[in-house]
Amino acid sequence: MPIITIRLAKGRSVEQKRDLARAITNTVVEKLDVNPEWVTVLFDEFDRENWATAGELHSDKYGKGFGKIGSQEYPK
Amino acid sequence: MPIITIRLAKGRSVEQKRDLARAITNTVVEKLDVNPEWVTVLFDEFDRENWATAGELHSDKYGKGFGKIGSQEYPK
Amino acid sequence: MPIITIRLAKGRSVEQKRDLARAITNTVVEKLDVNPEWVTVLFDEFDRENWATAGELHSDKYGKGFGKIGSQEYPK
Amino acid sequence: MPIITIRLAKGRSVEQKRDLARAITNTVVEKLDVNPEWVTVLFDEFDRENWATAGELHSDKYGKGFGKIGSQEYPK
Amino acid sequence: MPIITIRLAKGRSVEQKRDLARAITNTVVEKLDVNPEWVTVLFDEFDRENWATAGELHSDKYGKGFGKIGSQEYPK
Amino acid sequence: MPIITIRLAKGRSVEQKRDLARAITNTVVEKLDVNPEWVTVLFDEFDRENWATAGELHSDKYGKGFGKIGSQEYPK
Repeated sequence: MPIITIRLAKGRSVEQKRDLARAITNTVVEKLDVNPEWVTVLFDEFDRENWATAGELHSDKYGKGFGKIGSQEYPK
Repeated sequence: MPIITIRLAKGRSVEQKRDLARAITNTVVEKLDVNPEWVTVLFDEFDRENWATAGELHSDKYGKGFGKIGSQEYPK
Repeated sequence: MPIITIRLAKGRSVEQKRDLARAITNTVVEKLDVNPEWVTVLFDEFDRENWATAGELHSDKYGKGFGKIGSQEYPK
Repeated sequence: MPIITIRLAKGRSVEQKRDLARAITNTVVEKLDVNPEWVTVLFDEFDRENWATAGELHSDKYGKGFGKIGSQEYPK
Repeated sequence: MPIITIRLAKGRSVEQKRDLARAITNTVVEKLDVNPEWVTVLFDEFDRENWATAGELHSDKYGKGFGKIGSQEYPK
Repeated sequence: MPIITIRLAKGRSVEQKRDLARAITNTVVEKLDVNPEWVTVLFDEFDRENWATAGELHSDKYGKGFGKIGSQEYPK
């Protein structure tokens, strides 16, 4: 019954999340030897102003967007 | 001091959440023999594109809405 | 697919947790109109030295045990 | 690698969160003797209709706003 | 900075967790295009008496062990 | 009603946790302008085999102990 919660910056596309949910489920099924229907994946998304490392908000440190620094912007 | 976090699909009405928060608090007070003011209930809501089972996003599997398949739609 | 996480002081009996899991599931099924098999209940137990309110550890404030102050002790 | 998640009512300003993230990181670095870059702070914000104590939704109990009762309103 | 929390039944070996942590990190790095050092994986383990589905504790439903029903026992 | 969950490696002393809980509560009270009794602090402790970064378990990367690399060992 594994429940996998992925906390990440808001802004990924539905396609990316669809792809990632499928890939993570397959990995868990294979490595833990459980049935696919037992596996739950949750995407817990955070605005960058709600995520800080080394005491600095990511909206200050990385500006808008997600993934590598500045490489991807929020979809317009 | 029990803290109850309910993770569910976004879309329930305030009335449903008011009703559920009261009912769950009463159940916890009775079964764990604690004071009502010690009990916290949190609703952690997820869009269906952020919830997957068996590797499939619920927005793909169930479409819009919540609860039983197709039985309830997001309030217009 | 509601997932209910109950964070509470360690020490409740299996009977109490069995009873509470059943009662909470029934409440959620009734109030949210979902199927019982969709409901997951998790007990996330904390030692009292790992829980603080108003800046004071509960192991200091309430001593051993759980529930109402001093009314119940850890099972011997 | 401490990860600090702060669950609170939605509505604090970015300045308050910037200030709190920095202060909490400094406190953790000092008390746990870890490096600042190892510390992550997450703000997990809840609407008041999604937070209940003693069986009552905070949107009913406290109305709009956050912090002390009625002292601060959502920014217009 | 994705943080992946895997909630699962207690009892997997360190080898299984080592293997799963590496595989999940690689999947996240590939699908979300982030650096490996940004990815945190946490195993949040639960005794079967602390996990219930359809109102029934897994210690009652599945007995000891984890993974598929009865196929694996706690390491002696 | 802020709830602060601190996820960290298992092994800190009760004194360190007492000290940290008090300091964090004071910081939150000051920065968010809430009453001390409204603030809950939870320590969610993980064995190092249950925490991985860059795909590597911390029990492999850092060995026993917590805090800075090798600087502190589990209390004997």
